[in-house]
Amino acid sequence: MGVRAGGAAGAVFFLTDYGQADELAGVVRAVLARLAPGAPVVDLTHEVPPFDVRAGALALERAAPHLGPGVVLGVVDPGVGSPRRAVAVGLAGGERPRALVGPDNGLLGPAADALGGATGAVVLPRAAGEDQVTFDGRDVFAPAAAALWRGEALDALGEPLDPADLVRLAPPVLEVGEASLRAEVLWVDRFGNVQLAATAADGRAVGAVPGCRVEVEVATGGPEEGASRRVPARMVRAFADLAGAQTAAPELGLLVDANGRLALVCDRSPAATVLGVRSGDVVVVDVAAPPGGRGAGG
Amino acid sequence: MGVRAGGAAGAVFFLTDYGQADELAGVVRAVLARLAPGAPVVDLTHEVPPFDVRAGALALERAAPHLGPGVVLGVVDPGVGSPRRAVAVGLAGGERPRALVGPDNGLLGPAADALGGATGAVVLPRAAGEDQVTFDGRDVFAPAAAALWRGEALDALGEPLDPADLVRLAPPVLEVGEASLRAEVLWVDRFGNVQLAATAADGRAVGAVPGCRVEVEVATGGPEEGASRRVPARMVRAFADLAGAQTAAPELGLLVDANGRLALVCDRSPAATVLGVRSGDVVVVDVAAPPGGRGAGG
Amino acid sequence: MGVRAGGAAGAVFFLTDYGQADELAGVVRAVLARLAPGAPVVDLTHEVPPFDVRAGALALERAAPHLGPGVVLGVVDPGVGSPRRAVAVGLAGGERPRALVGPDNGLLGPAADALGGATGAVVLPRAAGEDQVTFDGRDVFAPAAAALWRGEALDALGEPLDPADLVRLAPPVLEVGEASLRAEVLWVDRFGNVQLAATAADGRAVGAVPGCRVEVEVATGGPEEGASRRVPARMVRAFADLAGAQTAAPELGLLVDANGRLALVCDRSPAATVLGVRSGDVVVVDVAAPPGGRGAGG
Repeated sequence: MGVRAGGAAGAVFFLTDYGQADELAGVVRAVLARLAPGAPVVDLTHEVPPFDVRAGALALERAAPHLGPGVVLGVVDPGVGSPRRAVAVGLAGGERPRALVGPDNGLLGPAADALGGATGAVVLPRAAGEDQVTFDGRDVFAPAAAALWRGEALDALGEPLDPADLVRLAPPVLEVGEASLRAEVLWVDRFGNVQLAATAADGRAVGAVPGCRVEVEVATGGPEEGASRRVPARMVRAFADLAGAQTAAPELGLLVDANGRLALVCDRSPAATVLGVRSGDVVVVDVAAPPGGRGAGG
Repeated sequence: MGVRAGGAAGAVFFLTDYGQADELAGVVRAVLARLAPGAPVVDLTHEVPPFDVRAGALALERAAPHLGPGVVLGVVDPGVGSPRRAVAVGLAGGERPRALVGPDNGLLGPAADALGGATGAVVLPRAAGEDQVTFDGRDVFAPAAAALWRGEALDALGEPLDPADLVRLAPPVLEVGEASLRAEVLWVDRFGNVQLAATAADGRAVGAVPGCRVEVEVATGGPEEGASRRVPARMVRAFADLAGAQTAAPELGLLVDANGRLALVCDRSPAATVLGVRSGDVVVVDVAAPPGGRGAGG
Repeated sequence: MGVRAGGAAGAVFFLTDYGQADELAGVVRAVLARLAPGAPVVDLTHEVPPFDVRAGALALERAAPHLGPGVVLGVVDPGVGSPRRAVAVGLAGGERPRALVGPDNGLLGPAADALGGATGAVVLPRAAGEDQVTFDGRDVFAPAAAALWRGEALDALGEPLDPADLVRLAPPVLEVGEASLRAEVLWVDRFGNVQLAATAADGRAVGAVPGCRVEVEVATGGPEEGASRRVPARMVRAFADLAGAQTAAPELGLLVDANGRLALVCDRSPAATVLGVRSGDVVVVDVAAPPGGRGAGG
């Protein structure tokens, strides 16, 4: 049977847009308990906005470096029942997950990259005679993840697929200039922190180091085409370095966040509200003055 | 002690209306971890609307066919502290749960039926000298579920009760006619899909097959008594077969959902909003024309 | 290595204000699965209001008496990245948790008291060369909790700290008079029940016993300074003893709740809405008449 102890085989890491009001994620957990008894199920989140493949892909990518051995089960699947492929993607494994399972719609790609890249892939078949086509998380993906967790080989699960043929999401907007960068908002978290597509390295490339002053330009979304406003900010290392905690006028900060990306933040206030931005918006960060220096805006 | 390894005894499947904002479900999980160490706890959902026994019973019923060995712990308990009975209900077991534990208010009945019917039942006593009567999930139901998971016999837990005397919920509205059916909305899920009390077999009985055209009649809820409107729809196999995904005018579809029930759906839009219906409402589905045919509405 | 089986070492009890929309709590669970394979993770709640240390401390305190062996991991950490200390607090252990891990901001104190008091404490260091300072739940606290769960000694984790030097929260408002008490609202739960700082013993001290009539005085929050209104109530043993369930005018009750505290409740209606109160408000409860007696309000 190839069933291994939970500790040996690792965990099943589980992410969906099923929400928690319904029993959908719970039923998939029950299927995993039945088909992979002993498998620890680590819920990453089930509150990906409905159908938002990009948000799910980014959450999996952020989680990826922290996952130990096991199998990733990701389901954000607006195309369920359409001809979109169901896939399992093999990884190098070792101290990290050995496979990702989910729809072939771009959801799994960034996490696969973060985990060293796909070493193989297969197309998961629908069970013969199966006419349920609306809940593949339960009927197709969970059984495949359970089989992989039990130790079944990737290529025993379906027809091989060249990983290069997996659907990829378009990369986020990111332009790194001389002392300025233009970047898409990837994520607004529960605390209102605004994660940008730019990394710490991108920040260093434009001269953004802790202590420097920056200006953030955001579209105002008013009737005037292209109208924008500029908000001064300061690069810091931690939320607590910022002034105005929980006041009406919190100081805006730029920092390298826990995923190694630049983020616009306040101390205990939602920067997303201060700036009026959300995921998918594009902001410009201009480095105005180095620490102690007399930069353009100094 | 009769303690078994988790894999052997199966899981504890756990559903409540406790929500997740408070630690209520967490405390019950802690009690299970203490009294049934090693028991995998599979959370089905804790977001049943407060006190909504019917919604909880339906969620348990939908989950039931997918549960492996173990014990079901269900708590939606508006009558906690009243003379309502606390019960454990025995099942045939085998590859499926061997017992359900919860209040005797109808919550457990549909799931018991879906799992082959009750083979026995007992009334759970309150611990001697116990004067806490407001959190039976923690104090009465979880200890009973833990004991059953550890292998204790059902009849060791309390006085026997004839399963025929368990409280039953009234069945939902369902009338199946010639080419028309009238059915209660059982559930609106996170995605706005509208599950009806009618099954796939009910659909076939009125001639609803993929490709046919139907009309859906819903009460408009306006000032006029009995006012209603009719919305055309098409029976399909999958969400992706429908037009108007994420537009202002999505096509309405009828399909057999993942629980084998008829559901009114759109592709990536909430059919419940399109129709203006919620759980407990009653809709009429008229089969207007068979696939390729020239029916009444053709 | 000192790794023990899950049942032997107990569980990791996990509470945060991370919410469930993001993968933050999930990533910490993944870290625990990697560093403490086999550890059952018991989620208490992750919906503590953002940055609300007091609410988190109270939830941990309420849960404490129900926790078996293991380690408590609590993270509500508005000062992450500031000089606030990261700590692990030792407990007597035995049938109860042997340690609490989290920020030194008052979060852990009430639970430590409820579990018999701290027997020791250490300051958790940041890993050498670590420049991530925004996600200590993942980077500092979870690794420490995992080490403790695996059996590492508390004093191996950091420099010792006198438990008397741990940060403490101010106690809640509570004044117990002759036939009256004034108490802070500690918690409004999902069902709208209003838990007070007063205990069952405080209630007995003012003559509040089941059957007696009381009056509850709440600030009205209007323009007039100190304006208040009085709402009659009755002390009962259970929600079901109250009249007006799910009506517009539900009867207000006072009872000893599942945590041994006095709570203002209605039967299946939110008492918090009836009274217009929330956590942190202060109410006065006057005992108006004993059961069957002719008291002040009789």
